[in-house]
Amino acid sequence: MFEGRLENIRKHTPLVHSITNYVTVNDCANILLACGASPIMADEIEEVEEITALCDGLNLNLGTLNKKTISAMFLAARKANALDRPILLDPVGAGASRLRTQTALELLDKVHISVLRGNVSEIKALTLGSSSTKGVDANFLDAVNEETLDAAAALTRSLSAKTGAIVAMTGAIDLVSDAKRTYVIRNGHPLMGRITGAGCMLSAMATAYLAANREVPLEAVSAAVCAMGVCGQIAIARMAEGEGNATYRNRLIDAVFNLSPEGLGKDAQAEMLS
Amino acid sequence: MFEGRLENIRKHTPLVHSITNYVTVNDCANILLACGASPIMADEIEEVEEITALCDGLNLNLGTLNKKTISAMFLAARKANALDRPILLDPVGAGASRLRTQTALELLDKVHISVLRGNVSEIKALTLGSSSTKGVDANFLDAVNEETLDAAAALTRSLSAKTGAIVAMTGAIDLVSDAKRTYVIRNGHPLMGRITGAGCMLSAMATAYLAANREVPLEAVSAAVCAMGVCGQIAIARMAEGEGNATYRNRLIDAVFNLSPEGLGKDAQAEMLS
Amino acid sequence: MFEGRLENIRKHTPLVHSITNYVTVNDCANILLACGASPIMADEIEEVEEITALCDGLNLNLGTLNKKTISAMFLAARKANALDRPILLDPVGAGASRLRTQTALELLDKVHISVLRGNVSEIKALTLGSSSTKGVDANFLDAVNEETLDAAAALTRSLSAKTGAIVAMTGAIDLVSDAKRTYVIRNGHPLMGRITGAGCMLSAMATAYLAANREVPLEAVSAAVCAMGVCGQIAIARMAEGEGNATYRNRLIDAVFNLSPEGLGKDAQAEMLS
Repeated sequence: MFEGRLENIRKHTPLVHSITNYVTVNDCANILLACGASPIMADEIEEVEEITALCDGLNLNLGTLNKKTISAMFLAARKANALDRPILLDPVGAGASRLRTQTALELLDKVHISVLRGNVSEIKALTLGSSSTKGVDANFLDAVNEETLDAAAALTRSLSAKTGAIVAMTGAIDLVSDAKRTYVIRNGHPLMGRITGAGCMLSAMATAYLAANREVPLEAVSAAVCAMGVCGQIAIARMAEGEGNATYRNRLIDAVFNLSPEGLGKDAQAEMLS
Repeated sequence: MFEGRLENIRKHTPLVHSITNYVTVNDCANILLACGASPIMADEIEEVEEITALCDGLNLNLGTLNKKTISAMFLAARKANALDRPILLDPVGAGASRLRTQTALELLDKVHISVLRGNVSEIKALTLGSSSTKGVDANFLDAVNEETLDAAAALTRSLSAKTGAIVAMTGAIDLVSDAKRTYVIRNGHPLMGRITGAGCMLSAMATAYLAANREVPLEAVSAAVCAMGVCGQIAIARMAEGEGNATYRNRLIDAVFNLSPEGLGKDAQAEMLS
Repeated sequence: MFEGRLENIRKHTPLVHSITNYVTVNDCANILLACGASPIMADEIEEVEEITALCDGLNLNLGTLNKKTISAMFLAARKANALDRPILLDPVGAGASRLRTQTALELLDKVHISVLRGNVSEIKALTLGSSSTKGVDANFLDAVNEETLDAAAALTRSLSAKTGAIVAMTGAIDLVSDAKRTYVIRNGHPLMGRITGAGCMLSAMATAYLAANREVPLEAVSAAVCAMGVCGQIAIARMAEGEGNATYRNRLIDAVFNLSPEGLGKDAQAEMLS
């Protein structure tokens, strides 16, 4: 099912405009190249609209945001909306500061975001930060595991319904929902939490999957989440004695580079929640 | 002696707020994760105080500073002082521009810095840049080796006494002093000078050691300096034919990831100067 | 012929000031250290002139430019001109936004640029963006290969004559021209296009070659281009099963670290166009 999603990236080489943090930006560029897409980074107000117009998708990441890049994000997002290019929002650190939470909520409110991808605490912060999410007890959700899966799926669906964005909440188990349908994905490895940028890289790559598969966005994002997890598993299998998180990061990107559509199809562990 | 310092990081997973340069920031994040801490980077004036308040320690690094990040550093530092969180200052490039020297001196003057970590030329610049350091002939000190060790130790002690900060002057031989006691450390390898960010990474990691070991700051910083040096030696031992500084950087972070308290205790070469 | 160019870097350890993008800046610093030079990055208006004055060469890279770094570039460039230090301009993304194209053209117009290094679309954009380039049909040139070599060489020569800068147009085949003489270089490997920063790294390294070889700038830049290509080939030869672009980036920098003047001389594939 997901094979075709990766095939389409390799066929169309989508160009992805990222306005992203300076911590993991190099890894985001390299993983885009690894999966078969092309990266461009630009955050100056005077040029972002032109850059967005050249691109097939826009990746907004709130890590190390500042007031100028926030303005640039709104300009780029409005241009992307006008040109019908998909936007992915990664609300890094939502909940850690009012600026991050408010910026994420304002983007969700004022522009059309196609996909929102975050970890459980970010998704919780955005759910709690908006007024009309009664009935979802996000406060009690700390991690997604087999016990909390139903509550987590309800949270993901609810935020998707409220925002109109596909919501991908990633962690030990990943959930991807468009409010009507929800995929649960069981790929990945805990070591991915010991490198910086696993989430940022996934967001960049998911933007490429989205841009190359406009008709099936839920499957596109789910395929990207599976691809990241499968590559996390491949990278673990290649780790040698004495290696640690720095080498793991490289092996993860290498695995994305070498992942075939068939390999993705074979190892993806995704199922539709009934 | 230093084993417990690393154990405490693994036990408490300190969260470290870094306002740091964009050259080596990814390596700083990965080495924090490698040693068992958690990184967060944020430099926007509107959010830094909130981020600092969430964290166990603050790492200020003057590489690629600009006027906005300098303001952010002062705000974050005052918040850290108010909440009694330790601050490490890495005065990258002090002496290379007035802006860097003055910013470092002003931080040392206006907020309480727990630890100042720099190389010999940075420590010299800060010593000479302040008025009351008569008697320490820093001008003649270019590198720390067995011949210059006494002069270097005097410089380190003197700057510590003047600033109230623990001073770590690192190079071929490292010195860590709280004015009363001074450790001399003989770990490390010259290849560490051929990668960018060895100093920045040490500063980030030392902030984690400091945050997890509040009662024994001199031992915490000395343990971090030993850990970096020991890992530099482990990384060298794992280098293969044809490998160079890029792979060495990865192996260094990998070694930090795999370093055990026992390994640190066994290989640390630290002695108290009599 | 090119051996001496690398020997001079190892002998003089030129210090290179880079005002460059935050995507590939870490790789630029590490490749400068790998080749035998020293990096310093600084882009704050208040300090760039002092930093430039300390350095042997200035590397200006327009990736992720913003208005403040553009101002910093002009200040640094004027200081470099006043002190007779060479400047390399890498017009990343010229043609992708007016801001990038105009900034590159304005730098070429208002300060003396020693070397302009870009890919074919950037060089085309700068040629077409200036008024007096009749007779060079850059519109029809998409890539440099054996068929388009003559047209590409004419474009390179023409832009060099117009700007007074040595022009290096790099791709599958590289051309380096000072308007009178043109080297054609056939080193490198296509995988270099699948890592981010191959061009940025070359520009940083070429600034070091230029700074260490002031009397023979055309040979200095050509040697840097050959060195990058030779190392791209060495890195390919060392790739193992399952490795991809992340590891390739490391092996490329490692190869630069280990490249000897003799190795460069032996493997450089450069010829003067007759």
